[in-house]
Amino acid sequence: MLQATHHSLAAFPLDRWWVAGFSWELKDKPLARTLLSRAVVLYRTPDGVVAALEDRCCHKELPLSCGVIEARGLRCGYHGLLFNTEGKCIEVPGQERIPDRARVPSYPLRERDQILWIWIGSNPDSQPDTEPPSYPVHNDPRYKFGGDSFHYDAPYQLIHDNLLDLSHLGYVHAKTIGGNPSLHMNAVVKVEGSGDHVRVVRLMPNSSPPPTYSAAWPFGTPGIDRWQEIDFKVSHVEIWTGAMDVGSGDLSDPKREGFHMRGFHGVTPETATSAHYFWTIATNPHPDKQDVTQLVVNQTAQTFEEDKVLIENQWQNQCRFPVRAQIDIHVDAGPNRARRVIERLVSGAVPK
Amino acid sequence: MLQATHHSLAAFPLDRWWVAGFSWELKDKPLARTLLSRAVVLYRTPDGVVAALEDRCCHKELPLSCGVIEARGLRCGYHGLLFNTEGKCIEVPGQERIPDRARVPSYPLRERDQILWIWIGSNPDSQPDTEPPSYPVHNDPRYKFGGDSFHYDAPYQLIHDNLLDLSHLGYVHAKTIGGNPSLHMNAVVKVEGSGDHVRVVRLMPNSSPPPTYSAAWPFGTPGIDRWQEIDFKVSHVEIWTGAMDVGSGDLSDPKREGFHMRGFHGVTPETATSAHYFWTIATNPHPDKQDVTQLVVNQTAQTFEEDKVLIENQWQNQCRFPVRAQIDIHVDAGPNRARRVIERLVSGAVPK
Amino acid sequence: MLQATHHSLAAFPLDRWWVAGFSWELKDKPLARTLLSRAVVLYRTPDGVVAALEDRCCHKELPLSCGVIEARGLRCGYHGLLFNTEGKCIEVPGQERIPDRARVPSYPLRERDQILWIWIGSNPDSQPDTEPPSYPVHNDPRYKFGGDSFHYDAPYQLIHDNLLDLSHLGYVHAKTIGGNPSLHMNAVVKVEGSGDHVRVVRLMPNSSPPPTYSAAWPFGTPGIDRWQEIDFKVSHVEIWTGAMDVGSGDLSDPKREGFHMRGFHGVTPETATSAHYFWTIATNPHPDKQDVTQLVVNQTAQTFEEDKVLIENQWQNQCRFPVRAQIDIHVDAGPNRARRVIERLVSGAVPK
Repeated sequence: MLQATHHSLAAFPLDRWWVAGFSWELKDKPLARTLLSRAVVLYRTPDGVVAALEDRCCHKELPLSCGVIEARGLRCGYHGLLFNTEGKCIEVPGQERIPDRARVPSYPLRERDQILWIWIGSNPDSQPDTEPPSYPVHNDPRYKFGGDSFHYDAPYQLIHDNLLDLSHLGYVHAKTIGGNPSLHMNAVVKVEGSGDHVRVVRLMPNSSPPPTYSAAWPFGTPGIDRWQEIDFKVSHVEIWTGAMDVGSGDLSDPKREGFHMRGFHGVTPETATSAHYFWTIATNPHPDKQDVTQLVVNQTAQTFEEDKVLIENQWQNQCRFPVRAQIDIHVDAGPNRARRVIERLVSGAVPK
Repeated sequence: MLQATHHSLAAFPLDRWWVAGFSWELKDKPLARTLLSRAVVLYRTPDGVVAALEDRCCHKELPLSCGVIEARGLRCGYHGLLFNTEGKCIEVPGQERIPDRARVPSYPLRERDQILWIWIGSNPDSQPDTEPPSYPVHNDPRYKFGGDSFHYDAPYQLIHDNLLDLSHLGYVHAKTIGGNPSLHMNAVVKVEGSGDHVRVVRLMPNSSPPPTYSAAWPFGTPGIDRWQEIDFKVSHVEIWTGAMDVGSGDLSDPKREGFHMRGFHGVTPETATSAHYFWTIATNPHPDKQDVTQLVVNQTAQTFEEDKVLIENQWQNQCRFPVRAQIDIHVDAGPNRARRVIERLVSGAVPK
Repeated sequence: MLQATHHSLAAFPLDRWWVAGFSWELKDKPLARTLLSRAVVLYRTPDGVVAALEDRCCHKELPLSCGVIEARGLRCGYHGLLFNTEGKCIEVPGQERIPDRARVPSYPLRERDQILWIWIGSNPDSQPDTEPPSYPVHNDPRYKFGGDSFHYDAPYQLIHDNLLDLSHLGYVHAKTIGGNPSLHMNAVVKVEGSGDHVRVVRLMPNSSPPPTYSAAWPFGTPGIDRWQEIDFKVSHVEIWTGAMDVGSGDLSDPKREGFHMRGFHGVTPETATSAHYFWTIATNPHPDKQDVTQLVVNQTAQTFEEDKVLIENQWQNQCRFPVRAQIDIHVDAGPNRARRVIERLVSGAVPK
């Protein structure tokens, strides 16, 4: 097993909402997923309530995810103990009395805009003090979207690094959303933010459309004005990229026209050295073109597969080299700022 | 690799016979098998003598199981050293003198009723003080049987738990030998035993035959009287189950009529966290029906595959959770009694 | 993961040339290879220069072997940093200034007789004080050769043992270059050497040709005089074997006629418990026979596959047994002498 020698592995920001998956993942079977090193079983009752329990029967420790969903809860697949959505055992087959201790920990789980949010506390009494984040794009009639859940054999912060620094598009994703490398490396970049928020804006006026863009949108001019807005919000990153004909509008105006790709990126640690990556990509189909949503989703999936290979290689390499300094270059401003946010949250310090 | 944090892993009951396999497994090739953490090679000479040696040539440490069987013993596959059934080197090719130290440890191995029994001592001088257990069912003309050797990635005591508590049949084996869950959970159960012996008897009068039973036996009435007798004997468990037409005899009479399934279950630790499961199932073919022995064996194999999946999932889950109390329910009386026997034997205490 | 409990694992002889591969392995893509526990990327520039760098970009630690070869060097596949053959970063895309620290360690790499030799020093200042070894057989018009690179999950010294003791041919390689076991076990063997050199000569006059020999050469008599000369040179072993018609010449004369097989065996530690085995086999095609070079290469590959299976089994077995003495037999004189050379080099002692 790989060992991380030069990375802080012990802690994640706690007492907050993290993405546990998507609504469509909970059908008629329980779903096992380890989140922030907690082994959790997610399930939806026949009347639609979603629940997250510790994935361990309190009797003989079989994963509850090996059991079956019933109207009243989740039944263990070994001796049939039945647990309700709060984790309380409400039936021990063949036995009248149900011991008080017959219960398993439960986690607050909310469904919002087709995203499942789980509250992971630093102690058993920690309860949500906010609603989970909203993501209106999933309900916006101007957009259509698709997505998937990926698993990474790499720490979640390497995915943050990747998302906050899109300069890699030219080298890693030339076949889809990339384009000319030097274009990306020489983009006008602004890094800002406050509190736990980091925002990176990259503008590439008068550039050439990459393959996915050309396939999806009938640009009218030889060149495009292109934008990338990246919003890091600890539990997830929102990335709004797009392009319009050169000179046809203000790149910084949220009401700008043209081709849009809006990405949701839920990056949830599985363990200290592995992560879940829950993503969707939404696009605005052009009225004169055949619907290209599926094309955009497929090419995005291909792009993220490329990132996964790269980041997992990067992590394996970090593991096999002893403590060794990295050098910083210009593209690291955004990622480094996000790393400082995580460090501060983990250490419990108050933001400056 | 999984680590067990809340299980005693270090010791097994020693100075006793354990099942090493079945007679039919020793043909013309040596068989490598780790038993109680000892790497052993089992083989049968051309004139039928069975032997068990440490699986390591004393020269360059190649496993002797990579060698070939000859009339006089087992020849190493690297430089041809020849070892007799006692582990003494009797030939060093190209060299006149055979060093005194050229020998490998051997283990007493006996063949009885088609079962191979190996004596594992607590020290090199430990020698058998008894004959290995007999199992007359394998030679009883009323029965026909078949069986197999399974490997478990789980400690042997989880298999004991499973065999001594057949209440799980309804939840795990509904398609074969199970039947209605509540039937099993509400069976009349008696747990008894003395010394190292644990006996669990479960009676289910006036119940419905499960699929395997109906396929194998022409029950004459709509209901059956069903029995399950489980005898735990440390190295193995004997389970005698069966059923007859309702009211047609005494369920507790060993001479009872009806459909019989008699299982031999040799449960031998491979390591502290893995096990061998050597099983046979014998049944009494009904004179008016086509021989269903193979059907019964096949459905039993399917049943044990279900148990294997379940128990390996259980073990993996026990490994990923830190020390955490389990709760006991009514079905645990038999398994817990067997666990106390093992604990006592390992600790060397005298039975009460 | 296997652990070696009774083998010295920590050190290799350093400040010397080791085989890194063959010339034909470096084409248009970088090649990742771990050598003496150093993760290295090997590559050849379009104008033919070969280079070996630490396989880790100094920016975000992606393996440089995930990058692409360009005219000026090797470009990282993440953010495009470009490194020349000395490991100096000569371009940071999108950034004017290149930090002084932007460099990766490089290793002296030489190409000689189609073999790639890498200098692994005990410290960063260690530089070659000799040319790498020559191997004229690869350029000798009398010979044709082929070869391959094998990977072993076993320490390199177990391969030395195997090569320096060809008595195992009868037991392990009967189908190719072996022959009668007792022939090999009773060969006339001479072990000699000085400094870091060990030489084992085995003569088998008046013996029968093994299958590969018969297929390759039209021996004129019922018997052959056979020789094996093994030269251990720390980084590699040269083995010159062959045979001629009985009585047709002096077996010890380097100008002897007959059928020749000349093996180059570069044995380079990958880690303490794994190794690279870079081998070629050269033979002298008989003018009256169809060219059998490929046959000889194929049968040699088959032979070495047999050795690999054997040695990996041996190593796994050494790992699972606690510290335990091996006994020596007559064939161990050569291997033991080579082990003492390695021990002396690792300890830094002066040769006696």
